[in-house]
Amino acid sequence: MPLSEIYLNRKSRVPLYMQIKNQIKDMILNDLLPDGKRLLPTREMAHLLGVNRSTIVTAYNELIDEGYIESHVGRGTVIKKKNDVESFSFNHQPMNWAEFFTTISKIEPPSFYDDYICIGPPEDTISLGVGIPDPDHYPSRKLKEILDKIVKEKPRIILQLSPSEGCYPLRAALADWIPHDDKPIDPNEIFITNGAVQALYIVSQALLAPGETVVVESPTSMNSLKTFRAARAKIIDIPVDQQGMRVDILDNLLSRQKIKLIYTIPTFQNPSGSVLSLERRVKLLDLARKYQVPIIEEDPYSMLYFDQVPPSSLKAMDTYESVIHIGTFSKILFQGLRVGWVVAPKPVIKQLLPIKFLIDLHTSTLEQYVFSEFINQGLLDKHVQKMRKVYARKKELMISALYKCCPDDLKWNEPVGGICLWCQLQGGLRTADLLREAIYEKVFFIEGKIFSPQNNHEDWLRLNFTYADEKQIEEGIRRLSSAIQKLKTRHGRKPEIESLSAKPII
Amino acid sequence: MPLSEIYLNRKSRVPLYMQIKNQIKDMILNDLLPDGKRLLPTREMAHLLGVNRSTIVTAYNELIDEGYIESHVGRGTVIKKKNDVESFSFNHQPMNWAEFFTTISKIEPPSFYDDYICIGPPEDTISLGVGIPDPDHYPSRKLKEILDKIVKEKPRIILQLSPSEGCYPLRAALADWIPHDDKPIDPNEIFITNGAVQALYIVSQALLAPGETVVVESPTSMNSLKTFRAARAKIIDIPVDQQGMRVDILDNLLSRQKIKLIYTIPTFQNPSGSVLSLERRVKLLDLARKYQVPIIEEDPYSMLYFDQVPPSSLKAMDTYESVIHIGTFSKILFQGLRVGWVVAPKPVIKQLLPIKFLIDLHTSTLEQYVFSEFINQGLLDKHVQKMRKVYARKKELMISALYKCCPDDLKWNEPVGGICLWCQLQGGLRTADLLREAIYEKVFFIEGKIFSPQNNHEDWLRLNFTYADEKQIEEGIRRLSSAIQKLKTRHGRKPEIESLSAKPII
Repeated sequence: MPLSEIYLNRKSRVPLYMQIKNQIKDMILNDLLPDGKRLLPTREMAHLLGVNRSTIVTAYNELIDEGYIESHVGRGTVIKKKNDVESFSFNHQPMNWAEFFTTISKIEPPSFYDDYICIGPPEDTISLGVGIPDPDHYPSRKLKEILDKIVKEKPRIILQLSPSEGCYPLRAALADWIPHDDKPIDPNEIFITNGAVQALYIVSQALLAPGETVVVESPTSMNSLKTFRAARAKIIDIPVDQQGMRVDILDNLLSRQKIKLIYTIPTFQNPSGSVLSLERRVKLLDLARKYQVPIIEEDPYSMLYFDQVPPSSLKAMDTYESVIHIGTFSKILFQGLRVGWVVAPKPVIKQLLPIKFLIDLHTSTLEQYVFSEFINQGLLDKHVQKMRKVYARKKELMISALYKCCPDDLKWNEPVGGICLWCQLQGGLRTADLLREAIYEKVFFIEGKIFSPQNNHEDWLRLNFTYADEKQIEEGIRRLSSAIQKLKTRHGRKPEIESLSAKPII
Repeated sequence: MPLSEIYLNRKSRVPLYMQIKNQIKDMILNDLLPDGKRLLPTREMAHLLGVNRSTIVTAYNELIDEGYIESHVGRGTVIKKKNDVESFSFNHQPMNWAEFFTTISKIEPPSFYDDYICIGPPEDTISLGVGIPDPDHYPSRKLKEILDKIVKEKPRIILQLSPSEGCYPLRAALADWIPHDDKPIDPNEIFITNGAVQALYIVSQALLAPGETVVVESPTSMNSLKTFRAARAKIIDIPVDQQGMRVDILDNLLSRQKIKLIYTIPTFQNPSGSVLSLERRVKLLDLARKYQVPIIEEDPYSMLYFDQVPPSSLKAMDTYESVIHIGTFSKILFQGLRVGWVVAPKPVIKQLLPIKFLIDLHTSTLEQYVFSEFINQGLLDKHVQKMRKVYARKKELMISALYKCCPDDLKWNEPVGGICLWCQLQGGLRTADLLREAIYEKVFFIEGKIFSPQNNHEDWLRLNFTYADEKQIEEGIRRLSSAIQKLKTRHGRKPEIESLSAKPII
């Protein structure tokens, strides 16, 4: 055995106890100190090394905690024996992976819906269930020109790493482009993410600890529910009517409970299509300030109005830095390139940064330059202008088809923007049951309860009019109507969702 | 006040107690039940609604927990009064954001290094500190051709959502391309991420719970330390020598402690450049099996050998499904597009999926098609062949410059592949101090202690030879040498890292 020595560097920033602990550990792991060997008592060791006895005590205690040494009354401190190798079952089987996973990996696995949304339904099925932009209008020629330009002009920039908060040119372009009334946006208040999904994930990581309460609208987006459930937050839902979130109910709630965050899609809400009225926007911002509760405003659709410009965003109206605004190119351009953004007060941006760095360093440099060109060349605005007309027409077409095929079986809203209709199935039937018939009829939609934290809205469904082409919309509604007829026949017109009892409670 | 009624739907999947609770809550929030109003006692309410009394008790208890009602001996159950609005300070100040953040957002913020790595050092500074591929050899013409091709041929595919596990064409291309000896890879064992950073983040989320222990090499990659620290894992380091990780020490450790994961970069290790010998690979896989500890094998560099093909990957040698293999295009092509991958047993892939879905839905469809074209057209192999020669030459050049400029002040390894030299500063000086001089001399490297979980390697530094051009390498080493001379002068050749005491401990 070589001479075992402890070297202390009193100039090092590593504390002395840790230097001692680490060196003893190294000797044990290198088999330089045999099992069972007795270490010097703390007092003698301290004297020998010229350190305080407490330094040695701390070092020994950590070694005991980590299982390297053990202390016995009467025998002093000795090197712990290795575990008997035989006590481990010498396993010739593959790893038993199920034993290894953390609880976080046991969050809801992607469902049938997620597959249909990401991969698409089978080819012969018409999808009225996805919020994908109209593929007949993808600006792919413009995209090709932009890619050519940036790969040629800036290969060294677009092929290299870029800052975690996002490339400055894109942040500057967005600062101008995002509607902000007379309240200029500082590019440093903008943070780039891989789409709005990642934006909400990072914001929820930064702000929502397990057990804290978040308020959502009911109905609300599937993704927000998934994100908040994974954060193990408590979710409270506030109903939405034609004027958006019922802020009177929210006020009542805030006066009774500690709420950490309010999540809202104020404009062309998903799935209800409702628009939070100007009056309620003012009230909501007042509540956020009064009760000091931050608002997450998800705003993917506000550019997609059919006729009248919707009210200003909460972010633009906010004078108390209470709003975290999330946006994305996914609904106004395309989704296969993944870029979204957060507009938030600088203290928030600062906290998002290390989370983004940890998750994926930064969003694709190439894609950030693609989108900044789309904005700077005015192509995004032109495209959005065109898509407003396309979607207004498709919406009309879908509503005409509904009037024609199922005027009595469905009731629907008349949205003034956005990407979907929100429909109530009449006669107390469940849309979960209708979906089974619909899949059989080769048409896909999303059933209402998916949009509710409590699985309400069992008789509602969402119909998207953006992705399917005009013929598919008409044929899709025809198939839907036929699915409804089959469901009604199967259930003999016996209502399923019904008031079976109605009693006064006070 | 409208007539308050409770409607029960006995066919609903929503439990009766929850239907009752939700409806009472709604009435309270809609101000239909005035503060202080007494609810019917549980027995009477149960009778009235025709449910078990326990159903009512559960509903009332949840309402009490959530602060809507309260129970008083003698007074029964009453609607709780709202909090006095005046008790909330009516705040006209902006949000006090510092109060709102979770602990996870307080992980290490990106440092000076991270900025230099992502954004680059100031323009007049030569960076020998970044593992970025040689920008003079970016295959940007080929990239442009591929982009043209896929935007033209597949606009509908590349601009749309794609599966969370990755696009099949890329997974299939990788399954063929990743060296696998005679052990074929199933594309369904491959999972696509936004680069290796995200791969490690997702794997660590799936497998590492707070307080669990992960073994790393010392030195090891900066990013792995950051990821494991953020997971609040305990990190134990095992030294690396010329043959890679000291698996004898690992064996000793495993016999004493419960270890959750082993993280290794077996081939051209970052930063030491060492290659885990074939014998140790066999031993490491044996240990993983014997102690049932999964291995994370990060493998970004193994294609970048200078002369001899390195030993097979642990993944290729693994017959017990114990290895999770992480790869990336970032070191062999470019980093501005973010695509990496995990090769792992299917039960692991299944657990990664919901985490990826939550974080960002999926990796850019466009970029996945770009890389599958690079592989399928044979361009990746050609490019890697070229870069092997380029990097071998640059490595030689750097070593020549070191022999010329600082033969006595630095000792270095002679790597047989990879992207860096690992150098020890002689004379007991700290590379943290050298870095200050070096920045002043306009050259940047990374100090050794950043690669250590315990801030060891204080007299080591990493020099990358891939990013800087040949002239910059020579000039960079000249500047480094001049920084060393200045440091020595400043410290009067007085060693800083020194054995100040050396005592026998047993």
